[in-house]
Amino acid sequence: MKNKDPNLIAIGRHFKKLRQEQRMSQEDIAHKADLNFSYYGKIERGEQNPSILICLKIAWALEKKLPEIFPFI
Amino acid sequence: MKNKDPNLIAIGRHFKKLRQEQRMSQEDIAHKADLNFSYYGKIERGEQNPSILICLKIAWALEKKLPEIFPFI
Repeated sequence: MKNKDPNLIAIGRHFKKLRQEQRMSQEDIAHKADLNFSYYGKIERGEQNPSILICLKIAWALEKKLPEIFPFI
Repeated sequence: MKNKDPNLIAIGRHFKKLRQEQRMSQEDIAHKADLNFSYYGKIERGEQNPSILICLKIAWALEKKLPEIFPFI
């Protein structure tokens, strides 16, 4: 994805912030959420448009409820 | 999708509740969010796993912020 969507960038940055607050690595989240490590990294960089079920896996890995993982956009 | 995912069902029902609170029809939301009407109906019935950018379009159509449109799952 050459032209990154600014909303995906905002969402990915938010995931990264929450992950760092939990002191977890990208590997930790990817493993816990059963996602490919490279794919998870792309989500944090705004290079992927994940489905809502993927977002739910990430929420579980972060020990958050679904609405808690998204920025107010 | 024969075996509907219970989380997609919960998300779809929540979208429906918010839409009805706004006194909007499925056609209203689909048109405002620039989504196919049939596709939007499938989301409300838990028969689709929409991407986060599709969810963001639905949030805008509902005049909500992204975290406000999801159930606490």
